[in-house]
Amino acid sequence: MSRKFYDLEYSDGRCFSPYCWRARFALAHKGLEAESVPVRMTDKETIAFSGSKTVPVLVDGENVVPDSWAIAEYLERAYPDAPSLFGGDTGRATCRFVNSWCDSQLLRALFYVIGPDLLAFFLPDDLEYFVRTREKRLGCTFEEMKTQREEREEALWNTLAPLRLMLSKQPYIGGEAPAYGDIIVGATLQWARCSSPISTIKPDDTPVYDWFQRMLDAYGGIARAMPAHPEAG
Amino acid sequence: MSRKFYDLEYSDGRCFSPYCWRARFALAHKGLEAESVPVRMTDKETIAFSGSKTVPVLVDGENVVPDSWAIAEYLERAYPDAPSLFGGDTGRATCRFVNSWCDSQLLRALFYVIGPDLLAFFLPDDLEYFVRTREKRLGCTFEEMKTQREEREEALWNTLAPLRLMLSKQPYIGGEAPAYGDIIVGATLQWARCSSPISTIKPDDTPVYDWFQRMLDAYGGIARAMPAHPEAG
Repeated sequence: MSRKFYDLEYSDGRCFSPYCWRARFALAHKGLEAESVPVRMTDKETIAFSGSKTVPVLVDGENVVPDSWAIAEYLERAYPDAPSLFGGDTGRATCRFVNSWCDSQLLRALFYVIGPDLLAFFLPDDLEYFVRTREKRLGCTFEEMKTQREEREEALWNTLAPLRLMLSKQPYIGGEAPAYGDIIVGATLQWARCSSPISTIKPDDTPVYDWFQRMLDAYGGIARAMPAHPEAG
Repeated sequence: MSRKFYDLEYSDGRCFSPYCWRARFALAHKGLEAESVPVRMTDKETIAFSGSKTVPVLVDGENVVPDSWAIAEYLERAYPDAPSLFGGDTGRATCRFVNSWCDSQLLRALFYVIGPDLLAFFLPDDLEYFVRTREKRLGCTFEEMKTQREEREEALWNTLAPLRLMLSKQPYIGGEAPAYGDIIVGATLQWARCSSPISTIKPDDTPVYDWFQRMLDAYGGIARAMPAHPEAG
């Protein structure tokens, strides 16, 4: 196969990075297969050819595409006859708002809750790098996160309000079927599902919970096929 | 003209409701004129024919359409040859996320900052109704809001993060030109601009500030034509 997908591998062999799941879902949405190449967080050499220091990186024949958003745009352009990720230019632009909301609000709110659980999934070299870069970015140590979990879970509930409200009006961000907006948010919740024993989305949060279950089943159930955190309820 | 637009009138005669501005902008986006009918907040009789207790209400020939989102959907369906608000079904669905974000996050964050200033724009009957319903909804008195302004302004800055991040990548939520996503957010900031002397969007928040200036100039400058708060800097 001439299509390769460089994916972030954690210490237990699973690949559950939220950005990489965006690209995986997007490939599945387009009905495309790709040979998976697991890469460790501090292994910058394997992907140096791409000019990027982070995964995901997609190699599709002659094309080298790093960055999850760029991969989605590339797939939409390169495979116009496969199911659309964006539904046109305005849809793509509007979806960028969902991407920005997820990156600036949801990922952060989730990280404050599940951050301490993530530490179990790094080998020593990666762990030191991960702790240093994340504590700086979040302005908070992993120890502090542990003690603040209750209020951080409440903040997460508030952060999810736009999704909850929207899902009371329609089944997917994309409307009647999932589109790239759903992929962005679903990939992020998949990361939490795989890395933490905490149910970040509770069954009593019915609209969000039910939608996430549908996302786990979407695309032939590829997200559900990855085991949840071993101690998840 | 057989097109009428029922708009919320404040005590100084201006109509700056954030929901009504969504409909006004949407009419302008479609290049449509409508006779404006100002309605006071507690005047439920004038719009009783519509089945709605709140404005905006659009009457277009035989069609009676309350609710800003329903008006946008109606206009898109009824005037398919005029410039599109959504750019298709997926774009419309994805834009609903922006609408839900604005209603659940941005409006609330702004209200906590400008709430006390709004009180000056209600006549006694409306004022009692407004204070009672809003204090209940926000779980906070107007007096408390006054004392919390500084931290509320900081929270507003954080709430705007997704918009700020997105605008570092593209000029409008709709992409190269404004679409209904821009209208939703622009209408909300117009409400703050008209009702409070506080600059809720500071010039040093360059991406958001510049975008809002473009929204004030869009559609022939209809938003800028409404005077800002008389004490605005």
